[in-house]
Amino acid sequence: MSEQRSETRLARALRLEPGAVRLAAYATDSTPAIKGGREEGQKRLADLGPGLLDLQSKLFAQGRAGDRRRLLLVLQGMDTSGKGGVLVHTVGLMDPQGLKITSFKAPTEEERQHDFLWRIEKVVPGAGYVGVFDRSHYEDVLIGRVRQLAPAEEIERRYGAINAFEKRLADDGTVILKCMLHISPQEQKRRLLARLEDPTKYWKYNPGDVDERQLWSQYAEAYEIALERTDTEHAPWFVVPSDKKWYRNLAIAKLLHEALEEMDLDWPEADFDIEAEKRRLAADTIGASDGQDS
Amino acid sequence: MSEQRSETRLARALRLEPGAVRLAAYATDSTPAIKGGREEGQKRLADLGPGLLDLQSKLFAQGRAGDRRRLLLVLQGMDTSGKGGVLVHTVGLMDPQGLKITSFKAPTEEERQHDFLWRIEKVVPGAGYVGVFDRSHYEDVLIGRVRQLAPAEEIERRYGAINAFEKRLADDGTVILKCMLHISPQEQKRRLLARLEDPTKYWKYNPGDVDERQLWSQYAEAYEIALERTDTEHAPWFVVPSDKKWYRNLAIAKLLHEALEEMDLDWPEADFDIEAEKRRLAADTIGASDGQDS
Repeated sequence: MSEQRSETRLARALRLEPGAVRLAAYATDSTPAIKGGREEGQKRLADLGPGLLDLQSKLFAQGRAGDRRRLLLVLQGMDTSGKGGVLVHTVGLMDPQGLKITSFKAPTEEERQHDFLWRIEKVVPGAGYVGVFDRSHYEDVLIGRVRQLAPAEEIERRYGAINAFEKRLADDGTVILKCMLHISPQEQKRRLLARLEDPTKYWKYNPGDVDERQLWSQYAEAYEIALERTDTEHAPWFVVPSDKKWYRNLAIAKLLHEALEEMDLDWPEADFDIEAEKRRLAADTIGASDGQDS
Repeated sequence: MSEQRSETRLARALRLEPGAVRLAAYATDSTPAIKGGREEGQKRLADLGPGLLDLQSKLFAQGRAGDRRRLLLVLQGMDTSGKGGVLVHTVGLMDPQGLKITSFKAPTEEERQHDFLWRIEKVVPGAGYVGVFDRSHYEDVLIGRVRQLAPAEEIERRYGAINAFEKRLADDGTVILKCMLHISPQEQKRRLLARLEDPTKYWKYNPGDVDERQLWSQYAEAYEIALERTDTEHAPWFVVPSDKKWYRNLAIAKLLHEALEEMDLDWPEADFDIEAEKRRLAADTIGASDGQDS
């Protein structure tokens, strides 16, 4: 079954190519493995919702029944690449009860006094949950590298530390999907300008984003190194063309759906005697005499 | 404007009546202040989604801009009353990025070594967030009272402690809505039986729920005392008839919508020079020469 499915798997189309990574080789405005345009894409995303919810509910139910598996979606990308959009349009299709979303900001004073993975460990999803990282430990080898927030040898050490950390999560039942939302600098400029044109978007605009933008090629290089060194079988990277918002949202929904499907989830068996419980309830007369029994 | 609105406010229809509380006086299968049936109700819930999302986004944006306000929805009710259903169908209409949902279980060993509000304090929503408690500190005067998990004088102390705690949250900008999902014991029996008939619902069935059900009238009394003693202007109780799931989901969506509307939220002003930023971006040529600048 999985072989049959693999022909159309989006994961295959978006998986990072092995070897040296050159982001320029990945188009930002293409729509790999998905036919049709915006309108059709938005409809397909809505249509995916119930299936995604069903799979997530099974994962959650299994978690309650002792299954340790869970899923972690890592979202990385330049400013305006659409991490927030994925949260509302794609992640928002799922049951919020089974989600654990963390939006990482600059580390606090206390967090800086610990290893960079200390604050990450505290918020990894528990059994049955879908965890989502809006930014992540990768910031520590992205802005950390570009802005030299740590000595070079410390940055160097982190790639291996990340791989070991993710391996441990995977070994304990976490399916990890890492998505780089890939936009062009021209698209970022359009989006920043759009925020300046629309009073409902002023709050998303931060002049500091334009300063970071000046370091575009340094960030691209930091991403290339990070992707190349941390792309593993247990925690693969996907490069999601993100100039088209509808494609980005749909692609990540499909990656989530595929990953959950491959977990072969089902509803847990009853861990009690079904017939005995039915008899017990049938004999139960609580509230039978009046509406309230109080 | 608020006077005009008050004529149709659902909050008025569902607000706990002042004075001694007798739950039997509240119908569980009625549909106060909402016309039409299930199908229309489900459609109206879907129609409320975009407005709810818009208001929540403004709250979130204001939180980023320094406004300390936030909202806390407390969901309480007997087993099967539909707290999980409200999370997926009503709370799920909002942006998960701005939600902070906590499902409270029996307190851990460590939590029991602290005051009962210790674990609550840690998860109250921050500025801009919509917090949702699936069960809450009220369990400590509900099952706590019925099962005598603490001495009588300690239970007694808690009502005042809850009021003082909620007052402090309100004084710091938290709008608090407390909803009791009110079902009949007959409806609970139907729902428990339904879980036994449907393999996709076995995982929600817990034989212990039938044991708790035997104490229905004691729980009803504990709710009556709790509601009566903790219904305040700053943290009001609403009794939501919940035998009809569509009504329960829609009613809570409307309560949320009304509460957010009354906060008079708007998009924050720009805290930077808009024209200067436009000029800076217009002059920015990053990525102008090629697609990637790397």
